[in-house]
Amino acid sequence: MTRNLSVRPDRIAADIEALAEITDPDRPWTRRAFTPRFLQGRAWVDRAFRAAGLETRIDAAGNLIGRRAGRREGLGTIVVGSHTDTVPDGGRYDGIAGVVAGLEIARALADRGIALDHDLEVIDCLAEEVSIFGVSCIGSRAAAGVLPAAWLERSAESITLAEGIASVGGDPGVLESAKRDDISAFLELHIEQGPVLEREKLDVGIVTAIAGITRIEVEVAGRADHAGTTPMDARADALVAAAGIVLAVREIAIDLAGRGDGHFAATVGEFSIEPGAANVVPSSARLLIDARAEARGLMETFLEALSARCRTAETPGIIVGPPRVLSDNPPTPSDPALLDEITAACDGLDVRHRRMASGAGHDMAWFARIAPAAMVFVPCRGGRSHAPDEWADSDAIALGAEVLLETILRLDRRASNGGTTWDAS
Amino acid sequence: MTRNLSVRPDRIAADIEALAEITDPDRPWTRRAFTPRFLQGRAWVDRAFRAAGLETRIDAAGNLIGRRAGRREGLGTIVVGSHTDTVPDGGRYDGIAGVVAGLEIARALADRGIALDHDLEVIDCLAEEVSIFGVSCIGSRAAAGVLPAAWLERSAESITLAEGIASVGGDPGVLESAKRDDISAFLELHIEQGPVLEREKLDVGIVTAIAGITRIEVEVAGRADHAGTTPMDARADALVAAAGIVLAVREIAIDLAGRGDGHFAATVGEFSIEPGAANVVPSSARLLIDARAEARGLMETFLEALSARCRTAETPGIIVGPPRVLSDNPPTPSDPALLDEITAACDGLDVRHRRMASGAGHDMAWFARIAPAAMVFVPCRGGRSHAPDEWADSDAIALGAEVLLETILRLDRRASNGGTTWDAS
Repeated sequence: MTRNLSVRPDRIAADIEALAEITDPDRPWTRRAFTPRFLQGRAWVDRAFRAAGLETRIDAAGNLIGRRAGRREGLGTIVVGSHTDTVPDGGRYDGIAGVVAGLEIARALADRGIALDHDLEVIDCLAEEVSIFGVSCIGSRAAAGVLPAAWLERSAESITLAEGIASVGGDPGVLESAKRDDISAFLELHIEQGPVLEREKLDVGIVTAIAGITRIEVEVAGRADHAGTTPMDARADALVAAAGIVLAVREIAIDLAGRGDGHFAATVGEFSIEPGAANVVPSSARLLIDARAEARGLMETFLEALSARCRTAETPGIIVGPPRVLSDNPPTPSDPALLDEITAACDGLDVRHRRMASGAGHDMAWFARIAPAAMVFVPCRGGRSHAPDEWADSDAIALGAEVLLETILRLDRRASNGGTTWDAS
Repeated sequence: MTRNLSVRPDRIAADIEALAEITDPDRPWTRRAFTPRFLQGRAWVDRAFRAAGLETRIDAAGNLIGRRAGRREGLGTIVVGSHTDTVPDGGRYDGIAGVVAGLEIARALADRGIALDHDLEVIDCLAEEVSIFGVSCIGSRAAAGVLPAAWLERSAESITLAEGIASVGGDPGVLESAKRDDISAFLELHIEQGPVLEREKLDVGIVTAIAGITRIEVEVAGRADHAGTTPMDARADALVAAAGIVLAVREIAIDLAGRGDGHFAATVGEFSIEPGAANVVPSSARLLIDARAEARGLMETFLEALSARCRTAETPGIIVGPPRVLSDNPPTPSDPALLDEITAACDGLDVRHRRMASGAGHDMAWFARIAPAAMVFVPCRGGRSHAPDEWADSDAIALGAEVLLETILRLDRRASNGGTTWDAS
């Protein structure tokens, strides 16, 4: 279907292409935070923001902010944000699509001569991906006022995070000044990074929550025996026990995902054995489980079921350490009223949509701590992400951007009509 | 039970202790072939052989041979052999017990003033364990005339195998001269390296065969997906598929081991996944299976059953490469008549025994190609081997040595009585 949109897919495609060209040449597409390549990308974004009529600045946390002042004081700022840094050998869309959508929204507003009552900002958040410092979402954590001060001393490749933030134009000495209290709504567009929208032939996913992420380690101890001389009934094979746990994790996850209580997924992503010699029965194994739940209750059920399965995996000579939670982040629900505005925008535009949780973390999860926040997903081919073949159609991104633009207009009208700050609560 | 033996447990204990002291001091017990430490051990063995009345020499393949001439020509040589090299951080008994048993047999014959009709040799075979050159049983392969000439050019740590053989006193230029055609019986004593004798409270295992060893690689290809965003029903998780194969290998092996067709064991000793990142669904897995069968038919059944399970492990997105045989050595049966002589010796000594296969490879497997060969196992604590806590009782080793001595006397008498070479066939 050809639609008559305010945003222009051709400009979105050109922006994505322009940023894609700013990549480490030997490993497309790579523009890691805190590198000269990243600054080259940032310079492009800054020029593009200014060309779209945005006034740019870099806050103390190194976020690049393009601002368009509103007609009225005191309504707060509507923010469209995401990030332009990539993982190594990453894609052209993860984060980038969201910043470009914000940029295109600013251009579309200018094209149509629309002056909002609210201030509008487009933010390129610093270092959403895990960077050399081993942590993610530097910029959005700081905007939420929850970047641990101790992290500034983390060092990698001979610089500290504080020096890294300074190198992109931030001012880590006054990091707390990056904390925002003026945001009336935070909106993020992102590629889904999963196959659901494509599979269901939908245009937009309205994200109900960022799933909680719990990382769990399980260690299995058995006994190293000679692979040739130890009878099958006299072994304590740690790999065999661990393989049973891998299958149990999947079985429990399938059950929980099918309960109708929202998104649940669990993955054994790291798995190793010792000693790893052809002729020795494995003496130990280690599993790292990544579990994601839209509802906290699902995660608690998972941990209980996993513990039970670990206990039953103990056979003579096999000790399965109780599951050890290494990190545990609860789910972040989106703002319900904001979800309704997005839904209304979709319906008005005749956009096919569904509600869904995000299994991945995003900058939005941090802004949700200080403001009504929500995000929209657009489909990406085969659900592929964090890989060179990541692909999203410019028309699909444009449709998501149009939904955000319409949502912004609805929020702005609602505040103007009511004469007060729009209240998402 | 205190027995009146010809061999002396106290001398065996002293020999084991003396060799144990010749170890890399920071990692007991380590005396790797082709190292100065190994030569130090060899010097001790040479002195001990000569003190026991054996005439010593080193053959072209680097085997250290202690010889005691017989009274009659043309009966051939009865050999007692094993090895004194160790794995890194290995034990004090693996191989060593067999050489010490041969040494003690020579001393016991001297003590009792027994002159055999046969020539008798005790052989410390070169490099039975996998050495820096990546292969095993250098000396015994050469004695059987089957050490591939190309192996001499293998190099590691700046020397070739040829140079390594020369460094221990061999003469690789005339390697073929190490091939034996005069051996009328080859006997080896070894610790069981498994738990069966200890579990069944037996003194000696009479080894019916060296199990065949087949190494099989299975590769599983799936698809790397985001662990958070990919629903459980949209994954092609290579680890999950591989875990199923690990359990299938065990299940098939338990079935085959219980069929009453002799020893069978299968082990997944190497197991790895890619990419091995916490938040990525594993895209590939590799299994290395070590399978051992006393009867060739069991191995063929195993390979068929494994192939079938690999095929059924294929689900949408998962490709399981057909099992790839990396190496395949058939079983080596012991000489049946020699087994009967050992059994008669055991019965005469009132030694509790059983027949059993060896799941591990030994020098005997190579001598079996050129001579009637057999071996006896003695129990070791917990079946532990290739580890610092490997332990066998001196009394247990002595009992095994007494069985070999009695077997040698029986073979010698049989040849003398018949007036011809003892014929094991």
